[in-house]
Amino acid sequence: MNLTERSKLRRLPARGSHELEAIYKILDAAFLGHIGFCVDGQPFVIPTLFGREDDTLFIHGSAASRMLRQLEHGVPACITVTHVDGLVLARSAFHHSMNYRSVVAFGTARKIEDSERKMHALEVVSDHLIRGRWDDVREPNEKEMKQTAVLEFTIEEASAKVRTGGPVDDEEDYALPVWAGVLPLSLKAQPAQADPRLIAETKLPEYIERYRSE
Amino acid sequence: MNLTERSKLRRLPARGSHELEAIYKILDAAFLGHIGFCVDGQPFVIPTLFGREDDTLFIHGSAASRMLRQLEHGVPACITVTHVDGLVLARSAFHHSMNYRSVVAFGTARKIEDSERKMHALEVVSDHLIRGRWDDVREPNEKEMKQTAVLEFTIEEASAKVRTGGPVDDEEDYALPVWAGVLPLSLKAQPAQADPRLIAETKLPEYIERYRSE
Repeated sequence: MNLTERSKLRRLPARGSHELEAIYKILDAAFLGHIGFCVDGQPFVIPTLFGREDDTLFIHGSAASRMLRQLEHGVPACITVTHVDGLVLARSAFHHSMNYRSVVAFGTARKIEDSERKMHALEVVSDHLIRGRWDDVREPNEKEMKQTAVLEFTIEEASAKVRTGGPVDDEEDYALPVWAGVLPLSLKAQPAQADPRLIAETKLPEYIERYRSE
Repeated sequence: MNLTERSKLRRLPARGSHELEAIYKILDAAFLGHIGFCVDGQPFVIPTLFGREDDTLFIHGSAASRMLRQLEHGVPACITVTHVDGLVLARSAFHHSMNYRSVVAFGTARKIEDSERKMHALEVVSDHLIRGRWDDVREPNEKEMKQTAVLEFTIEEASAKVRTGGPVDDEEDYALPVWAGVLPLSLKAQPAQADPRLIAETKLPEYIERYRSE
């Protein structure tokens, strides 16, 4: 698997294009990305939750976070999202593969200073994670907002890569008595576990129940 | 989520230590990592399959891969592995979190030139992905080996970070009538899909059947 040929990268295509839609669809189906940045030639790759609005990804964390402090001044960054969809088992070792959908997005991140925009960005991240949750919970107070840093990452270039389908073997290998096919994989939710201190008769919200069956 | 405080990083601890075991356990439970490297200050983060042997991670790809060509000469790299274990839903937006296990590993990668070691590395990657598979399939031939590049990445520093358990709310928020708890998530296998050209009576191997129930 290899997604880096520079020829595959391109300026973020015009809004509404088929390719842009494909990129957004892959981003929106995920809530976790891996963000990369360089400090004196040393790469760092850090898992991060994110939310998307148009061509902007929002990420957040502790205001004391070294990652966010490195990124907040607009250094080049890369956010990569990968969905594992299955293992592709061929008759030869060489043709084994993985079904997946991934996006590699390049851009720069900047700290959001405006408090209204910062609150909006947090709502976008929350909605991205579980739509409906934000309206149910206590919003961040002033102290919590101070402890939180929120960055906006504008996508400047992005590429999507997708593999689907079964194995493709060399013609002569189809005669081998080797099981071949696909083992589908996906991130699945199990039944929600209520906090022991839940106050009586608090119902499981529909958006969590629904999440399980998606 | 933020795993980068440099104080958290450390030289790979002595073999057999509790921390090293924890790092290896997280790596071994995954088959996909995200590898980061810098080219002229531009970070790249690319999903990659990997296998582990002691403190070495093996990655492979097309010999024409730009990623592997960048890495093969020993530039600093970072391989990060993240397992998503669940969403942690608190009564306040601020205390929402994710249960996860992750490893951030720093080191350098080098191309494996020796053909025996290269074949061994491919077997390690295959075993890491699905133990037992390598023995069933046709091994790479000379032409395929030429088309494949294999890199060994020696872990020089690594850190593990793990979050488990339920939400931790501010004391006064426990009175809120908001559902709180954990929505467990995990990468699950669905029933294997046989290739349409499977020769008659080829059975689903036990190691794939077992994989499903893990």
